[in-house]
Amino acid sequence: MGQKDSSRILDALHSRRDLVNQRLTTHLDTIGPAHLSDASNHLFIAGGKRLRPVVCLIAAETIYNQDLSPFPYENLLDYSGSSINMLDAASSLELIHIFTLIHDDIMDDDDLRRGVPSVHQKFNINTAILAGDILYSKAFETLGRCAEYSSNVSYALTSLATVCSDICEGQALDVQFGNANLVSIEDYLQMIELKTGVLFAESAALPAQLLGQPPEVIDALYTYGLLAGKAFQIYDDLLDLTTPSSTLGKQRGSDLSEQKQTILTIHATNAGVDLSSFVQEGDSSPSESDMDSLVEALEDSGTISYVHGLSQDLSIQAKQQLEILPSNHSRELLSDIVDLFCQRDH
Amino acid sequence: MGQKDSSRILDALHSRRDLVNQRLTTHLDTIGPAHLSDASNHLFIAGGKRLRPVVCLIAAETIYNQDLSPFPYENLLDYSGSSINMLDAASSLELIHIFTLIHDDIMDDDDLRRGVPSVHQKFNINTAILAGDILYSKAFETLGRCAEYSSNVSYALTSLATVCSDICEGQALDVQFGNANLVSIEDYLQMIELKTGVLFAESAALPAQLLGQPPEVIDALYTYGLLAGKAFQIYDDLLDLTTPSSTLGKQRGSDLSEQKQTILTIHATNAGVDLSSFVQEGDSSPSESDMDSLVEALEDSGTISYVHGLSQDLSIQAKQQLEILPSNHSRELLSDIVDLFCQRDH
Repeated sequence: MGQKDSSRILDALHSRRDLVNQRLTTHLDTIGPAHLSDASNHLFIAGGKRLRPVVCLIAAETIYNQDLSPFPYENLLDYSGSSINMLDAASSLELIHIFTLIHDDIMDDDDLRRGVPSVHQKFNINTAILAGDILYSKAFETLGRCAEYSSNVSYALTSLATVCSDICEGQALDVQFGNANLVSIEDYLQMIELKTGVLFAESAALPAQLLGQPPEVIDALYTYGLLAGKAFQIYDDLLDLTTPSSTLGKQRGSDLSEQKQTILTIHATNAGVDLSSFVQEGDSSPSESDMDSLVEALEDSGTISYVHGLSQDLSIQAKQQLEILPSNHSRELLSDIVDLFCQRDH
Repeated sequence: MGQKDSSRILDALHSRRDLVNQRLTTHLDTIGPAHLSDASNHLFIAGGKRLRPVVCLIAAETIYNQDLSPFPYENLLDYSGSSINMLDAASSLELIHIFTLIHDDIMDDDDLRRGVPSVHQKFNINTAILAGDILYSKAFETLGRCAEYSSNVSYALTSLATVCSDICEGQALDVQFGNANLVSIEDYLQMIELKTGVLFAESAALPAQLLGQPPEVIDALYTYGLLAGKAFQIYDDLLDLTTPSSTLGKQRGSDLSEQKQTILTIHATNAGVDLSSFVQEGDSSPSESDMDSLVEALEDSGTISYVHGLSQDLSIQAKQQLEILPSNHSRELLSDIVDLFCQRDH
């Protein structure tokens, strides 16, 4: 993907992100009292790509398949003529995402998020628990109010709830893997499917659920999101090791120094690489040169090319799912997003 | 209320509680992996009255208004002939309740709950956060699946989500009041309405929402639950001080020694009682005789009779809401429950 292509896609993402931010602000403003509001808004204000709601909006454009400018996100008509506010639906996905970040940061004792102190660091653990909890319920409220009450809305709400249960199970597996010596690649892939994949899946499928699209369209979009989400996560694991800290915006190799299992550590261990020789126990910031040596070892063991290949395979499979959808600019954008996030440098 | 009346009402509650427990077991069994399942089941296994789901079932019987034995909770027909599983709907309320207990115990650092160690004590804080989170989403899943997807289900789901946001705000106010010197009785009543009242309100209103009853029926049941919930909480505050520890099953006066604001401490402080003279700072278990002296002082200040009177007033107002409903045995039971819980000794 060329520089020009990338910036064209990024522009498309940013214009939709700005719409999502406006709408999210309205929903976050309903939270009280003040200290809970501040804590709930903290990571939203810190930034973020809003990739999940943006994917939701683009999926809505794709299946709506009408070349309208401006696109009427707040007033999309389902088959029965009922109006749906897709910006509200999209907002619910980011509210869930921020809730998971806040609670995960407590569990992983991560101090930094989006370049600012994590919520439990900035406030305290109790406030962070409660901020996550209220974002959780606000997500369901927001989705529930995106349209007149209808069977499509109850389907979408139940689907989002199921996704949230999956995310919790994924997080529980992730914590469990942290203490386990041997995790198989299959188990790891299952974990990231639950922890990361299903929310991307729901992000892509939600407009089809709300607009009453046929099951095969809902399934295709869900699978697209699931595969793309897994590809993103695996590619992220790779970048965490291969990108200099200065470019990454956080400590390079932090997964490794926190002794977290990733697809790289699992593959490398299976291939006989002694990871402990590169990072000392309790060393929270491994040096760039240690990391460079490690990357070299992972290249020799075939780990880098295995993981890179897997993320590319998943990307291709994700994009294939889109073939069932109407062919239009927005469908192309759904495809381009996958390439952008699985070929980026950081 | 006589001994005989009480035991008749308790029998009626227990038979419905047993049905709820059976159904809840099925839903809790879907949680994995093992350690998350254990933590999520911990407080359910420890016991509990299941008062919220039981109120839901009795409200369903009242508005269904058919003398059927056994009552078909799992197959109630709404106005359009769609089948609703009210045991699933009722279960969702207990799942929400247990979630709030688990997270509140972390925030309040309470070690005991339902006679067993709290979840974060038995497991750890991270597992307790996650157990609460998954019970939260399971509640929405369970409610979402109580019927074919319909507009009534989406209305009920959105209403439950709104109630959860209120609960979080109530908990935030409760934490905030802990650090405040002056809390008014109005502010305190607003806090318990959010923290405790709204879930009782939703418990009573949920069957009417799902069965597509007219707004005035939904509102009456919601208000019944809201007032009854506040009456229960205020009466609980009273019992915490006036009942011996051995009968209470927990430390008598624990609210006071934890320096929590309750309606009693607020009224007494306003009336010029110096509460600090009865409990030493850091004294986690005030003696029975200290508590007896305090109760005497609160009788002199008019606090006991004020709080008792308020809980009785709220009870009467709650029961008046029921007049709009069909007159039947179940309606009487909704009324009797209020008396039972606002006249009990412990």
